[in-house]
Amino acid sequence: MFLRAKFLQLEAEKPVVILNKEDAAELGIRPLERVELCFREKKLVAIVNVARRIVREGEVGLYEEIQEGFDVRPNEKIRVEPASPPKSLVFIKKKLLGQTLTPKELHAIINDTVNRRLSEIELTAFVMALYNRGMSMNEAASLSEAMAMTGKTLKLRSKAIYDKHSVGGCPGDKTSIVVVPIVAAAGLTIPKTSSRAITSPAGTADRFECIAPVNLSLEEVRRVVNKTNACLVWGGAVDLAPADDIFIRIEYPLSIDPFLLPSVMSKKKAVNAKYVVIDVPTGKETKIRTKDEFENLANEFIQLGKKLGIKVECISTFADQPIGNCVGPMLEAKEALTTFIKGHGAPDLVDKATTLAGELLEFAGAKNGKQAALEILRTGKAYKKLREIIEAQGGNPDIKPDDLTPGCKVAEFKSSKSGKVLWISNKAVDITAREAGAPRDKGAGIYFRKKLGDKVHKGEILFELYADKTNKFSRAVELVRKLNVIGVGRERGMLLEELPAPEEERYFILER
Amino acid sequence: MFLRAKFLQLEAEKPVVILNKEDAAELGIRPLERVELCFREKKLVAIVNVARRIVREGEVGLYEEIQEGFDVRPNEKIRVEPASPPKSLVFIKKKLLGQTLTPKELHAIINDTVNRRLSEIELTAFVMALYNRGMSMNEAASLSEAMAMTGKTLKLRSKAIYDKHSVGGCPGDKTSIVVVPIVAAAGLTIPKTSSRAITSPAGTADRFECIAPVNLSLEEVRRVVNKTNACLVWGGAVDLAPADDIFIRIEYPLSIDPFLLPSVMSKKKAVNAKYVVIDVPTGKETKIRTKDEFENLANEFIQLGKKLGIKVECISTFADQPIGNCVGPMLEAKEALTTFIKGHGAPDLVDKATTLAGELLEFAGAKNGKQAALEILRTGKAYKKLREIIEAQGGNPDIKPDDLTPGCKVAEFKSSKSGKVLWISNKAVDITAREAGAPRDKGAGIYFRKKLGDKVHKGEILFELYADKTNKFSRAVELVRKLNVIGVGRERGMLLEELPAPEEERYFILER
Repeated sequence: MFLRAKFLQLEAEKPVVILNKEDAAELGIRPLERVELCFREKKLVAIVNVARRIVREGEVGLYEEIQEGFDVRPNEKIRVEPASPPKSLVFIKKKLLGQTLTPKELHAIINDTVNRRLSEIELTAFVMALYNRGMSMNEAASLSEAMAMTGKTLKLRSKAIYDKHSVGGCPGDKTSIVVVPIVAAAGLTIPKTSSRAITSPAGTADRFECIAPVNLSLEEVRRVVNKTNACLVWGGAVDLAPADDIFIRIEYPLSIDPFLLPSVMSKKKAVNAKYVVIDVPTGKETKIRTKDEFENLANEFIQLGKKLGIKVECISTFADQPIGNCVGPMLEAKEALTTFIKGHGAPDLVDKATTLAGELLEFAGAKNGKQAALEILRTGKAYKKLREIIEAQGGNPDIKPDDLTPGCKVAEFKSSKSGKVLWISNKAVDITAREAGAPRDKGAGIYFRKKLGDKVHKGEILFELYADKTNKFSRAVELVRKLNVIGVGRERGMLLEELPAPEEERYFILER
Repeated sequence: MFLRAKFLQLEAEKPVVILNKEDAAELGIRPLERVELCFREKKLVAIVNVARRIVREGEVGLYEEIQEGFDVRPNEKIRVEPASPPKSLVFIKKKLLGQTLTPKELHAIINDTVNRRLSEIELTAFVMALYNRGMSMNEAASLSEAMAMTGKTLKLRSKAIYDKHSVGGCPGDKTSIVVVPIVAAAGLTIPKTSSRAITSPAGTADRFECIAPVNLSLEEVRRVVNKTNACLVWGGAVDLAPADDIFIRIEYPLSIDPFLLPSVMSKKKAVNAKYVVIDVPTGKETKIRTKDEFENLANEFIQLGKKLGIKVECISTFADQPIGNCVGPMLEAKEALTTFIKGHGAPDLVDKATTLAGELLEFAGAKNGKQAALEILRTGKAYKKLREIIEAQGGNPDIKPDDLTPGCKVAEFKSSKSGKVLWISNKAVDITAREAGAPRDKGAGIYFRKKLGDKVHKGEILFELYADKTNKFSRAVELVRKLNVIGVGRERGMLLEELPAPEEERYFILER
């Protein structure tokens, strides 16, 4: 059937066309089925939406991507014929039925995912099938490889690539910023790509962006790493394992994360990492809550690493409160930078960072990695390396903590009684800092004056809330009054639960 | 945040708005999350899509439905704020985790489904969760009731409502057209709503439309049934259990059908049926293939009926070949009309129709229902009733079989050898008739001159292929040469399977 091109002046991330209901019926096509478009020499398969009015009989409505790809003008004739769904849909159905998929089949699915050949329904079915049926270690390995292969890969001079990853879930976790320069200062190559926050107040990329540019192309990353042994960049700009972002869009509204393992390992595979330390924050409000859960996850990562030729070490870290004193991009960047300049800082931050860095140094043969890492931080070698990285990424190496100014709206929250800090709720911290504007408003966040176990006098400041914008500031202040961010008391209270409980806030950690 | 209305001149079936990427980030909204729109006194929750160019910062892109609903003009300011997902998403997540849902929770999900408050991802997750976790009989009953209550319901004078349903899968099945007038002629009330074809060459609505109008409103249906005891109309125009159509859109591309039971029973509930006979075509190329499968499904229908206050009788019918001699809307309508006028017809059609009608007559107290049904057909009482129904629905009661003319393109397919008809492939029949243009081209279809067990001489016509349009005709003729529609031989061949097999055609029966 030949149809006249109609421009819809719309953008879509995937190939979609709109047909009139009558033409669709004539072609025997139902909404979300596929057509093959043919214009001059070019062919393209698109998913069909159906309209009654805006696209008339005899017309085919085109999104900008297709009209540009075809270089077609309005009213030119395009041949439109029914097309079969991609072969990979058959494999998705196999997984629906609980069958194990071969590497070839998984590769076909990931390839069609990245090339936008699968509809939202089909992608959701795949995510749900993995969630319901699970994946074998071989399937996880094939998925990791397929996800790495369908994106770009980082090719470096060095063959021994080290990397660090956190499965997330603990606010204020600026550990990567401290780890990377330490490891690089020891002469190891660590091309760290990080995500921006998805559900948290700040991702490593959001934090480091306050100090230096992080939106580097893959070629720029290569140059920076070849020069300095390291980088601290946003993973989104370098297009490593792009399938991950597509799956995240499906997983997030459903609060499920069956892709955790292949997602993490595909990114490591894409930078050709050989040694990886994985931080698993473990605590009552994080993804991983118990020793058993940690050990299961760690074993999976280690086994998957073996299949992919990557040595993996997993570390369970204490996560019942934020790391360091600050939460929010600018405040955290300031805390990290200060730690480098002074050579020491918040004890939990330094302990965590040198533990993780130490593991990587021990992969490279160090006897006491943690001690060596502490030494590199104390003696200023790490700061020197950080300056090199900042400069190579296009930032100002002379940047000072005072250059990093948090939001101008500030509220102090004081303790209504004396005692000790008995708990801090990560969940309440996350929600409050996001309400204040983090991560988009870089200055928004929370500065903790007191942490777990600290003595508090009545009237002392517990924490300060920062925001860039008045309306978000007011909303966040309001929220603090409703949520229990921090608990102070003489002794641990005995009340565990009260029913009926207040309505649960939507809260799902999807950080990788 | 206040944004200026921009008209997109687009229609959507659900409330969707397009925000600029920057505004979405400022609101902290990711694609497919929700915003509340507020204009003057009106409020509306919409799902967010994100654009970079076509909707600029400060604008909100509106589909036609929303711009009409708000009665807003271009550039007028609309307040846009983040909104929570509907409560029912929590219940979908419960089902994802394998928990049983309460009637209230299922009702909330169905209500949000019908009101388009759930995204494609969320709906797919629900369908997949039911597919993976199954549903208890109580859940099926709650779903049936919720699906009925969220649509219109048919209120009739008679309190004893009879109904008939086929789970489908057998081509040429014009049984309903024969059953309904017989049952109504016996004085029972049978308001039959039928679907159009989804995956088959004709649904009952497609067939009967050749004889009389079927797109009646619910009010018209009420009038027709109160007058004649019966109707034969399209279910789509009367809006009974509309959730079903939404789920079909998800199920079809995935070739799964977890909603079969509540789908069927919700439609029966919506017409307030008290006695229902369900035809389960059973055969090697239908949905239900074996005695065991039939018995399981039948028990489920019967149990579900008990919970809903509906007496259900299930009948397994032979389905290894098409019913009667014709496949395709016009040919089938002609076959059915002829059967009424003559008082007899194709033995399998008459046997099936009088068996099913007989069951309903026995519900009403008849001793030998089948015999009574045959009598009503033979004596012309059924034809008289059919004429009443045709007239009440706005058709011409004097319509004759010769008025029903099949497609003008005809090809005869002859046997290349002598013997007996050993098999007919329903699958090949379906695919061929659809390729020829059925159900949209009413004249397209197949006329079988020979059926299972019939003697055939070399050169005798096995079947005729009809089409309305040249291009579809050629494609269908081509297809017949590739597929094995009908098998003739001296004795049953012994070959069961050959490997490697040819690529399987996409073939999934989604008829209810």
